[in-house]
Amino acid sequence: MPKYKLIVSYDGTAYGGWQSQHNSISIQSVIEETLSMILRFSCKITGSGRTDAGVHALGQVAHFLSPNTIDEKKVLHSLNALLPKDIRALSLCLVEDSFHARYSAVGKIYQYFIHLSDVEDPFLRRYALHIKHKINLEELSIATRYLIGTHDFSSFANEQQKGSAGKNAVRTLQRIDIIPTAYGICLEFEGTGFLYKMVRNITGTLLEIASGKRKKETLPKILEAKDRRLAGKAADPHALFLTKVLYNQ
Amino acid sequence: MPKYKLIVSYDGTAYGGWQSQHNSISIQSVIEETLSMILRFSCKITGSGRTDAGVHALGQVAHFLSPNTIDEKKVLHSLNALLPKDIRALSLCLVEDSFHARYSAVGKIYQYFIHLSDVEDPFLRRYALHIKHKINLEELSIATRYLIGTHDFSSFANEQQKGSAGKNAVRTLQRIDIIPTAYGICLEFEGTGFLYKMVRNITGTLLEIASGKRKKETLPKILEAKDRRLAGKAADPHALFLTKVLYNQ
Repeated sequence: MPKYKLIVSYDGTAYGGWQSQHNSISIQSVIEETLSMILRFSCKITGSGRTDAGVHALGQVAHFLSPNTIDEKKVLHSLNALLPKDIRALSLCLVEDSFHARYSAVGKIYQYFIHLSDVEDPFLRRYALHIKHKINLEELSIATRYLIGTHDFSSFANEQQKGSAGKNAVRTLQRIDIIPTAYGICLEFEGTGFLYKMVRNITGTLLEIASGKRKKETLPKILEAKDRRLAGKAADPHALFLTKVLYNQ
Repeated sequence: MPKYKLIVSYDGTAYGGWQSQHNSISIQSVIEETLSMILRFSCKITGSGRTDAGVHALGQVAHFLSPNTIDEKKVLHSLNALLPKDIRALSLCLVEDSFHARYSAVGKIYQYFIHLSDVEDPFLRRYALHIKHKINLEELSIATRYLIGTHDFSSFANEQQKGSAGKNAVRTLQRIDIIPTAYGICLEFEGTGFLYKMVRNITGTLLEIASGKRKKETLPKILEAKDRRLAGKAADPHALFLTKVLYNQ
Protein backbone atom coordinates (compact mmCIF):
# COMPACT_ATOMS: atom_id res chain seq x y z
CA MET A 1 0.00 0.00 0.00
CA PRO A 2 1.38 3.43 -0.91
CA LYS A 3 2.39 5.56 2.08
CA TYR A 4 2.01 9.33 2.24
CA LYS A 5 3.64 12.02 4.35
CA LEU A 6 1.48 14.98 5.27
CA ILE A 7 2.76 18.22 6.79
CA VAL A 8 0.19 20.36 8.59
CA SER A 9 0.07 23.67 10.41
CA TYR A 10 -2.58 24.41 12.99
CA ASP A 11 -3.80 26.97 15.46
CA GLY A 12 -4.41 24.71 18.47
CA THR A 13 -6.59 27.23 20.36
CA ALA A 14 -9.90 25.50 19.68
CA TYR A 15 -8.74 21.89 20.07
CA GLY A 16 -8.13 19.34 22.79
CA GLY A 17 -4.70 18.58 21.33
CA TRP A 18 -3.37 16.46 18.48
CA GLN A 19 -4.89 13.40 20.05
CA SER A 20 -7.69 14.33 22.38
CA GLN A 21 -8.08 12.57 25.72
CA HIS A 22 -11.25 14.23 26.90
CA ASN A 23 -14.46 15.25 25.24
CA SER A 24 -12.86 17.89 23.09
CA ILE A 25 -12.19 17.64 19.38
CA SER A 26 -8.71 16.50 18.39
CA ILE A 27 -6.75 17.81 15.43
CA GLN A 28 -5.91 14.26 14.37
CA SER A 29 -9.58 13.28 14.21
CA VAL A 30 -10.53 16.35 12.17
CA ILE A 31 -7.81 15.53 9.64
CA GLU A 32 -8.77 11.85 9.59
CA GLU A 33 -12.42 12.63 8.98
CA THR A 34 -11.59 15.07 6.21
CA LEU A 35 -9.13 12.71 4.53
CA SER A 36 -11.62 9.84 4.78
CA MET A 37 -14.25 11.96 3.09
CA ILE A 38 -11.89 12.87 0.24
CA LEU A 39 -10.29 9.43 -0.21
CA ARG A 40 -13.48 7.43 0.42
CA PHE A 41 -11.94 4.99 2.88
CA SER A 42 -11.51 5.14 6.64
CA CYS A 43 -8.15 6.86 6.79
CA LYS A 44 -6.04 6.67 9.95
CA ILE A 45 -3.04 8.95 10.34
CA THR A 46 0.01 8.58 12.57
CA GLY A 47 1.54 11.80 13.84
CA SER A 48 5.16 12.47 14.78
CA GLY A 49 3.92 12.86 18.34
CA ARG A 50 1.14 14.53 20.26
CA THR A 51 0.78 18.20 20.93
CA ASP A 52 -1.12 19.24 24.07
CA ALA A 53 -4.43 21.04 24.14
CA GLY A 54 -3.86 24.63 23.04
CA VAL A 55 -0.41 24.00 21.54
CA HIS A 56 0.10 25.06 17.91
CA ALA A 57 2.09 23.60 15.03
CA LEU A 58 3.87 25.17 12.10
CA GLY A 59 5.07 21.83 10.75
CA GLN A 60 3.52 18.76 12.34
CA VAL A 61 4.13 15.61 10.31
CA ALA A 62 1.88 12.57 9.91
CA HIS A 63 1.78 9.56 7.63
CA PHE A 64 -1.01 7.36 6.33
CA LEU A 65 -1.47 4.36 4.10
CA SER A 66 -3.82 4.37 1.15
CA PRO A 67 -5.15 1.33 -0.69
CA ASN A 68 -4.63 3.20 -3.97
CA THR A 69 -2.23 5.74 -5.35
CA ILE A 70 -3.63 9.23 -4.86
CA ASP A 71 -3.22 12.49 -6.73
CA GLU A 72 -1.26 14.38 -4.07
CA LYS A 73 -1.83 17.83 -5.51
CA LYS A 74 -5.55 17.30 -5.84
CA VAL A 75 -5.93 15.79 -2.37
CA LEU A 76 -3.89 18.63 -0.84
CA HIS A 77 -6.18 21.11 -2.54
CA SER A 78 -9.31 19.29 -1.36
CA LEU A 79 -7.94 19.11 2.17
CA ASN A 80 -7.53 22.87 2.33
CA ALA A 81 -10.97 23.37 0.83
CA LEU A 82 -12.61 21.13 3.44
CA LEU A 83 -10.54 21.50 6.60
CA PRO A 84 -11.48 24.26 9.05
CA LYS A 85 -9.37 27.38 8.52
CA ASP A 86 -7.36 26.81 11.69
CA ILE A 87 -5.84 23.63 10.22
CA ARG A 88 -3.93 23.83 6.92
CA ALA A 89 -2.26 21.08 4.92
CA LEU A 90 1.12 22.37 3.74
CA SER A 91 2.40 19.42 1.74
CA LEU A 92 1.57 15.87 0.80
CA CYS A 93 3.95 13.44 -0.86
CA LEU A 94 4.54 9.76 -1.44
CA VAL A 95 7.19 8.26 0.87
CA GLU A 96 8.98 4.92 1.11
CA ASP A 97 7.38 2.11 3.07
CA SER A 98 10.10 2.43 5.70
CA PHE A 99 9.07 5.99 6.59
CA HIS A 100 7.30 6.44 9.91
CA ALA A 101 6.22 9.91 11.09
CA ARG A 102 7.17 9.08 14.66
CA TYR A 103 9.94 6.47 14.52
CA SER A 104 11.81 7.96 11.57
CA ALA A 105 11.99 11.37 13.24
CA VAL A 106 15.54 12.18 14.32
CA GLY A 107 14.68 15.43 16.03
CA LYS A 108 12.17 18.17 16.65
CA ILE A 109 12.21 21.92 16.90
CA TYR A 110 9.81 23.73 19.24
CA GLN A 111 9.40 27.46 19.72
CA TYR A 112 8.04 29.15 22.81
CA PHE A 113 7.08 32.80 22.33
CA ILE A 114 7.33 35.31 25.17
CA HIS A 115 5.86 38.80 24.94
CA LEU A 116 7.72 41.21 27.21
CA SER A 117 5.78 44.40 27.80
CA ASP A 118 3.91 46.41 30.43
CA VAL A 119 0.67 46.07 28.50
CA GLU A 120 -0.21 42.92 26.59
CA ASP A 121 -0.65 43.32 22.84
CA PRO A 122 -4.20 42.11 22.06
CA PHE A 123 -2.95 40.53 18.82
CA LEU A 124 -0.43 38.34 20.62
CA ARG A 125 -2.67 37.10 23.40
CA ARG A 126 -3.40 33.78 21.71
CA TYR A 127 0.17 33.02 20.64
CA ALA A 128 2.64 34.34 23.19
CA LEU A 129 3.06 34.30 26.96
CA HIS A 130 2.78 37.82 28.33
CA ILE A 131 5.28 38.76 31.03
CA LYS A 132 4.93 42.18 32.60
CA HIS A 133 7.89 42.20 34.95
CA LYS A 134 11.54 42.54 33.99
CA ILE A 135 13.28 39.25 33.34
CA ASN A 136 17.01 38.62 33.48
CA LEU A 137 18.05 37.48 30.03
CA GLU A 138 21.63 36.80 31.06
CA GLU A 139 20.54 34.47 33.85
CA LEU A 140 18.16 32.82 31.41
CA SER A 141 20.93 32.32 28.89
CA ILE A 142 23.34 30.83 31.42
CA ALA A 143 20.58 28.62 32.85
CA THR A 144 19.94 27.02 29.46
CA ARG A 145 23.50 25.63 29.46
CA TYR A 146 22.68 23.33 32.38
CA LEU A 147 20.00 21.68 30.28
CA ILE A 148 21.65 21.48 26.87
CA GLY A 149 23.20 18.06 26.24
CA THR A 150 22.16 14.51 27.07
CA HIS A 151 20.32 14.09 30.36
CA ASP A 152 17.63 12.06 32.02
CA PHE A 153 14.81 14.60 31.83
CA SER A 154 12.41 12.76 34.20
CA SER A 155 12.16 15.86 36.40
CA PHE A 156 10.77 17.76 33.44
CA ALA A 157 8.36 15.07 32.25
CA ASN A 158 4.79 14.73 33.37
CA GLU A 159 3.30 11.43 34.46
CA GLN A 160 1.62 10.22 31.28
CA GLN A 161 4.88 9.62 29.48
CA LYS A 162 6.98 8.96 32.56
CA GLY A 163 4.87 5.96 33.42
CA SER A 164 5.20 4.45 29.99
CA ALA A 165 8.80 5.41 29.33
CA GLY A 166 10.13 5.57 32.89
CA LYS A 167 13.48 3.99 32.24
CA ASN A 168 13.98 5.82 28.98
CA ALA A 169 13.75 9.48 29.87
CA VAL A 170 17.17 10.21 28.45
CA ARG A 171 17.02 12.78 25.71
CA THR A 172 19.48 15.08 24.01
CA LEU A 173 18.77 18.79 23.80
CA GLN A 174 21.07 20.12 21.09
CA ARG A 175 20.21 23.75 21.73
CA ILE A 176 17.96 26.21 23.50
CA ASP A 177 18.38 29.47 21.62
CA ILE A 178 17.06 32.75 22.93
CA ILE A 179 15.97 34.63 19.82
CA PRO A 180 14.91 38.28 20.02
CA THR A 181 11.57 39.03 18.37
CA ALA A 182 9.73 42.27 17.61
CA TYR A 183 7.94 42.06 20.96
CA GLY A 184 10.10 39.94 23.25
CA ILE A 185 11.91 36.67 22.86
CA CYS A 186 11.45 33.20 21.46
CA LEU A 187 12.98 30.15 23.12
CA GLU A 188 13.86 27.71 20.38
CA PHE A 189 14.43 24.11 21.42
CA GLU A 190 16.03 21.47 19.25
CA GLY A 191 16.28 17.95 20.56
CA THR A 192 16.31 14.28 19.59
CA GLY A 193 12.96 13.85 21.24
CA PHE A 194 10.83 15.39 23.92
CA LEU A 195 8.99 13.82 26.85
CA TYR A 196 5.40 14.66 27.72
CA LYS A 197 5.20 18.40 28.61
CA MET A 198 9.00 18.64 28.62
CA VAL A 199 9.26 21.91 26.69
CA ARG A 200 6.60 23.59 28.82
CA ASN A 201 8.12 22.32 32.07
CA ILE A 202 11.61 23.47 31.05
CA THR A 203 10.26 26.84 29.90
CA GLY A 204 8.32 27.34 33.13
CA THR A 205 11.42 26.52 35.18
CA LEU A 206 13.68 28.77 33.09
CA LEU A 207 11.21 31.64 33.46
CA GLU A 208 11.21 31.21 37.24
CA ILE A 209 15.01 31.53 37.09
CA ALA A 210 14.84 34.56 34.79
CA SER A 211 12.31 36.14 37.17
CA GLY A 212 14.54 35.65 40.22
CA LYS A 213 12.25 33.09 41.84
CA ARG A 214 14.69 30.20 41.53
CA LYS A 215 18.45 29.87 41.26
CA LYS A 216 19.95 28.48 38.06
CA GLU A 217 22.45 26.50 40.14
CA THR A 218 19.61 24.24 41.29
CA LEU A 219 19.17 22.82 37.78
CA PRO A 220 21.78 20.01 38.07
CA LYS A 221 20.12 18.84 41.30
CA ILE A 222 16.68 18.94 39.70
CA LEU A 223 17.91 16.82 36.78
CA GLU A 224 19.66 14.40 39.11
CA ALA A 225 16.64 13.91 41.37
CA LYS A 226 14.44 12.61 38.53
CA ASP A 227 11.50 14.03 40.41
CA ARG A 228 8.94 16.18 38.58
CA ARG A 229 8.00 17.97 41.80
CA LEU A 230 11.37 19.70 41.95
CA ALA A 231 11.07 21.56 38.67
CA GLY A 232 8.90 24.61 38.03
CA LYS A 233 5.34 24.92 36.81
CA ALA A 234 4.58 24.14 33.18
CA ALA A 235 4.42 27.29 31.06
CA ASP A 236 1.04 27.93 29.41
CA PRO A 237 0.37 25.92 26.23
CA HIS A 238 -0.89 28.76 24.02
CA ALA A 239 2.62 30.14 23.37
CA LEU A 240 4.16 26.83 22.27
CA PHE A 241 4.65 25.85 18.63
CA LEU A 242 5.86 22.56 17.19
CA THR A 243 7.94 24.19 14.48
CA LYS A 244 9.56 21.32 12.60
CA VAL A 245 10.04 17.57 12.71
CA LEU A 246 13.44 16.47 11.45
CA TYR A 247 14.07 13.37 9.32
CA ASN A 248 17.23 12.08 7.69
CA GLN A 249 15.66 11.45 4.32
CA MET B 1 -13.49 69.73 33.97
CA PRO B 2 -10.17 68.02 33.27
CA LYS B 3 -9.97 66.33 29.87
CA TYR B 4 -8.11 63.10 29.20
CA LYS B 5 -6.74 61.50 26.07
CA LEU B 6 -6.84 57.73 25.92
CA ILE B 7 -5.03 55.60 23.33
CA VAL B 8 -6.35 52.06 22.85
CA SER B 9 -5.52 49.02 20.78
CA TYR B 10 -8.11 46.39 19.99
CA ASP B 11 -8.73 43.18 18.16
CA GLY B 12 -12.05 44.00 16.50
CA THR B 13 -12.95 40.38 15.66
CA ALA B 14 -15.56 39.99 18.38
CA TYR B 15 -17.16 43.44 18.15
CA GLY B 16 -19.75 45.26 16.11
CA GLY B 17 -17.31 48.14 15.57
CA TRP B 18 -16.16 51.14 17.56
CA GLN B 19 -19.72 52.37 17.75
CA SER B 20 -22.17 49.57 17.22
CA GLN B 21 -25.25 50.08 15.09
CA HIS B 22 -26.88 46.70 15.51
CA ASN B 23 -27.29 44.35 18.42
CA SER B 24 -23.60 43.61 18.76
CA ILE B 25 -21.32 44.95 21.45
CA SER B 26 -19.32 48.05 20.57
CA ILE B 27 -15.76 48.72 21.63
CA GLN B 28 -16.71 52.21 22.74
CA SER B 29 -19.42 50.92 25.07
CA VAL B 30 -17.09 48.35 26.64
CA ILE B 31 -14.53 51.07 27.37
CA GLU B 32 -17.21 53.44 28.66
CA GLU B 33 -18.63 50.83 31.01
CA THR B 34 -15.20 49.92 32.31
CA LEU B 35 -14.15 53.55 32.79
CA SER B 36 -17.45 54.34 34.52
CA MET B 37 -16.87 51.45 36.92
CA ILE B 38 -13.37 52.68 37.77
CA LEU B 39 -14.13 56.40 37.94
CA ARG B 40 -17.56 56.04 39.55
CA PHE B 41 -19.38 58.35 37.19
CA SER B 42 -21.12 57.76 33.90
CA CYS B 43 -18.18 58.30 31.58
CA LYS B 44 -18.75 59.05 27.90
CA ILE B 45 -15.85 58.91 25.49
CA THR B 46 -15.42 60.50 22.07
CA GLY B 47 -13.34 58.59 19.55
CA SER B 48 -11.30 59.97 16.67
CA GLY B 49 -13.78 58.23 14.40
CA ARG B 50 -15.57 54.94 14.01
CA THR B 51 -14.01 51.68 12.94
CA ASP B 52 -16.29 49.13 11.24
CA ALA B 53 -17.28 45.77 12.64
CA GLY B 54 -14.26 43.49 12.51
CA VAL B 55 -11.72 46.27 11.95
CA HIS B 56 -8.79 46.45 14.41
CA ALA B 57 -6.88 49.32 15.94
CA LEU B 58 -3.29 49.70 17.03
CA GLY B 59 -3.74 53.29 18.13
CA GLN B 60 -7.31 54.51 18.30
CA VAL B 61 -7.64 57.77 20.24
CA ALA B 62 -10.53 58.94 22.41
CA HIS B 63 -11.06 61.72 24.91
CA PHE B 64 -13.31 62.11 27.93
CA LEU B 65 -14.12 64.66 30.59
CA SER B 66 -13.90 63.86 34.27
CA PRO B 67 -15.45 65.88 37.10
CA ASN B 68 -12.25 65.33 39.11
CA THR B 69 -8.57 64.98 38.42
CA ILE B 70 -7.69 61.31 38.09
CA ASP B 71 -4.52 59.33 38.74
CA GLU B 72 -3.70 58.44 35.12
CA LYS B 73 -1.26 55.66 35.92
CA LYS B 74 -3.65 53.99 38.33
CA VAL B 75 -6.65 54.29 36.01
CA LEU B 76 -4.61 52.92 33.10
CA HIS B 77 -3.63 49.96 35.23
CA SER B 78 -7.22 49.37 36.36
CA LEU B 79 -8.46 49.62 32.79
CA ASN B 80 -6.13 46.84 31.66
CA ALA B 81 -7.08 44.76 34.67
CA LEU B 82 -10.80 45.08 33.92
CA LEU B 83 -11.07 45.35 30.14
CA PRO B 84 -11.39 42.14 28.11
CA LYS B 85 -8.02 41.00 26.76
CA ASP B 86 -8.88 42.00 23.21
CA ILE B 87 -9.01 45.67 24.20
CA ARG B 88 -5.92 47.26 25.78
CA ALA B 89 -5.41 50.79 27.03
CA LEU B 90 -1.97 51.96 25.89
CA SER B 91 -1.79 55.42 27.39
CA LEU B 92 -3.82 57.94 29.31
CA CYS B 93 -2.87 61.56 29.84
CA LEU B 94 -4.33 64.93 30.70
CA VAL B 95 -4.84 67.20 27.70
CA GLU B 96 -5.83 70.82 27.18
CA ASP B 97 -9.50 71.75 27.02
CA SER B 98 -9.11 72.54 23.34
CA PHE B 99 -8.16 68.96 22.46
CA HIS B 100 -10.81 66.92 20.65
CA ALA B 101 -10.10 63.33 19.58
CA ARG B 102 -11.97 63.84 16.33
CA TYR B 103 -11.73 67.52 15.45
CA SER B 104 -8.12 67.99 16.51
CA ALA B 105 -6.96 65.07 14.38
CA VAL B 106 -4.95 66.28 11.40
CA GLY B 107 -4.55 62.86 9.83
CA LYS B 108 -4.82 59.12 10.17
CA ILE B 109 -2.76 56.13 9.20
CA TYR B 110 -4.44 52.86 8.26
CA GLN B 111 -2.80 49.57 7.35
CA TYR B 112 -4.35 46.83 5.26
CA PHE B 113 -2.54 43.47 5.44
CA ILE B 114 -2.51 41.07 2.51
CA HIS B 115 -1.26 37.50 2.80
CA LEU B 116 0.03 36.21 -0.53
CA SER B 117 0.37 32.45 -0.57
CA ASP B 118 -1.04 29.27 -2.09
CA VAL B 119 -2.13 28.04 1.34
CA GLU B 120 -3.43 30.41 3.99
CA ASP B 121 -1.40 30.59 7.20
CA PRO B 122 -3.83 29.66 10.02
CA PHE B 123 -2.21 32.25 12.29
CA LEU B 124 -2.94 35.09 9.87
CA ARG B 125 -6.53 34.24 9.07
CA ARG B 126 -7.97 36.77 11.51
CA TYR B 127 -5.66 39.63 10.57
CA ALA B 128 -4.82 39.52 6.88
CA LEU B 129 -6.66 39.04 3.60
CA HIS B 130 -5.54 35.83 1.94
CA ILE B 131 -4.97 35.99 -1.81
CA LYS B 132 -4.04 32.78 -3.60
CA HIS B 133 -3.54 34.03 -7.12
CA LYS B 134 -0.62 36.07 -8.38
CA ILE B 135 -1.10 39.80 -8.19
CA ASN B 136 0.70 42.42 -10.21
CA LEU B 137 2.57 44.60 -7.74
CA GLU B 138 3.78 47.01 -10.41
CA GLU B 139 0.24 47.66 -11.61
CA LEU B 140 -0.82 48.08 -8.00
CA SER B 141 1.95 50.57 -7.38
CA ILE B 142 1.16 52.64 -10.46
CA ALA B 143 -2.57 52.52 -9.67
CA THR B 144 -2.03 54.10 -6.24
CA ARG B 145 -0.68 57.23 -7.93
CA TYR B 146 -4.11 58.00 -9.40
CA LEU B 147 -5.54 58.18 -5.89
CA ILE B 148 -2.80 59.97 -4.00
CA GLY B 149 -3.48 63.67 -3.66
CA THR B 150 -6.60 65.73 -3.04
CA HIS B 151 -9.76 64.36 -4.62
CA ASP B 152 -13.47 64.09 -4.11
CA PHE B 153 -13.61 60.48 -2.90
CA SER B 154 -17.42 60.10 -3.14
CA SER B 155 -16.98 57.06 -5.40
CA PHE B 156 -15.10 55.33 -2.61
CA ALA B 157 -17.45 56.31 0.22
CA ASN B 158 -20.44 54.28 1.32
CA GLU B 159 -23.82 55.83 1.93
CA GLN B 160 -23.79 56.41 5.67
CA GLN B 161 -21.19 59.14 5.49
CA LYS B 162 -21.98 60.27 1.98
CA GLY B 163 -25.47 61.29 3.04
CA SER B 164 -24.27 63.33 5.95
CA ALA B 165 -21.20 64.81 4.31
CA GLY B 166 -22.22 64.73 0.68
CA LYS B 167 -20.78 68.05 -0.31
CA ASN B 168 -17.60 67.52 1.63
CA ALA B 169 -16.14 64.30 0.28
CA VAL B 170 -12.87 65.98 -0.60
CA ARG B 171 -9.96 64.40 1.22
CA THR B 172 -6.22 64.34 0.79
CA LEU B 173 -4.39 61.03 0.62
CA GLN B 174 -0.75 61.85 1.30
CA ARG B 175 0.46 58.36 0.53
CA ILE B 176 -0.45 54.76 -0.17
CA ASP B 177 2.73 52.79 0.50
CA ILE B 178 3.12 49.16 -0.49
CA ILE B 179 5.24 47.67 2.25
CA PRO B 180 6.60 44.11 1.93
CA THR B 181 5.93 41.92 4.97
CA ALA B 182 7.12 38.45 5.95
CA TYR B 183 4.09 36.91 4.25
CA GLY B 184 2.89 39.39 1.65
CA ILE B 185 2.30 43.11 1.61
CA CYS B 186 0.79 45.86 3.67
CA LEU B 187 -0.96 48.82 2.10
CA GLU B 188 -0.33 51.82 4.33
CA PHE B 189 -2.64 54.80 3.87
CA GLU B 190 -2.01 58.24 5.29
CA GLY B 191 -4.61 60.92 4.79
CA THR B 192 -6.16 64.01 6.28
CA GLY B 193 -9.35 62.10 6.85
CA PHE B 194 -11.23 59.13 5.54
CA LEU B 195 -14.84 58.74 4.48
CA TYR B 196 -17.00 55.82 5.57
CA LYS B 197 -15.45 52.56 4.23
CA MET B 198 -13.03 54.58 2.08
CA VAL B 199 -9.92 52.49 2.88
CA ARG B 200 -11.72 49.21 2.27
CA ASN B 201 -13.31 50.46 -0.95
CA ILE B 202 -9.99 51.76 -2.27
CA THR B 203 -8.22 48.53 -1.26
CA GLY B 204 -10.87 46.39 -2.92
CA THR B 205 -10.61 48.42 -6.12
CA LEU B 206 -6.79 48.37 -6.10
CA LEU B 207 -6.84 44.59 -5.62
CA GLU B 208 -9.15 44.20 -8.61
CA ILE B 209 -6.60 46.16 -10.64
CA ALA B 210 -3.67 44.11 -9.28
CA SER B 211 -5.61 40.94 -10.15
CA GLY B 212 -6.21 42.02 -13.75
CA LYS B 213 -9.97 42.41 -13.30
CA ARG B 214 -9.99 46.16 -13.82
CA LYS B 215 -7.73 48.66 -15.58
CA LYS B 216 -5.88 51.25 -13.53
CA GLU B 217 -6.68 53.84 -16.21
CA THR B 218 -10.34 53.75 -15.13
CA LEU B 219 -9.49 55.32 -11.76
CA PRO B 220 -9.69 58.98 -12.86
CA LYS B 221 -13.14 58.32 -14.34
CA ILE B 222 -14.27 56.59 -11.19
CA LEU B 223 -13.16 59.54 -9.07
CA GLU B 224 -14.78 62.00 -11.45
CA ALA B 225 -18.13 60.19 -11.53
CA LYS B 226 -18.63 60.51 -7.74
CA ASP B 227 -20.63 57.32 -7.94
CA ARG B 228 -19.93 54.52 -5.49
CA ARG B 229 -21.25 51.91 -7.94
CA LEU B 230 -18.29 52.46 -10.26
CA ALA B 231 -15.59 51.44 -7.78
CA GLY B 232 -14.78 47.90 -6.67
CA LYS B 233 -16.11 45.86 -3.79
CA ALA B 234 -15.02 46.75 -0.26
CA ALA B 235 -12.14 44.58 0.92
CA ASP B 236 -12.91 42.45 3.99
CA PRO B 237 -12.73 44.29 7.34
CA HIS B 238 -10.62 41.74 9.26
CA ALA B 239 -7.36 42.80 7.58
CA LEU B 240 -7.73 46.53 8.28
CA PHE B 241 -6.00 48.31 11.17
CA LEU B 242 -6.39 51.90 12.32
CA THR B 243 -2.70 52.34 13.06
CA LYS B 244 -2.34 55.92 14.27
CA VAL B 245 -4.28 59.13 14.66
CA LEU B 246 -2.16 62.20 14.04
CA TYR B 247 -2.39 65.45 16.04
CA ASN B 248 -0.35 68.62 15.89
CA GLN B 249 0.22 68.87 19.59
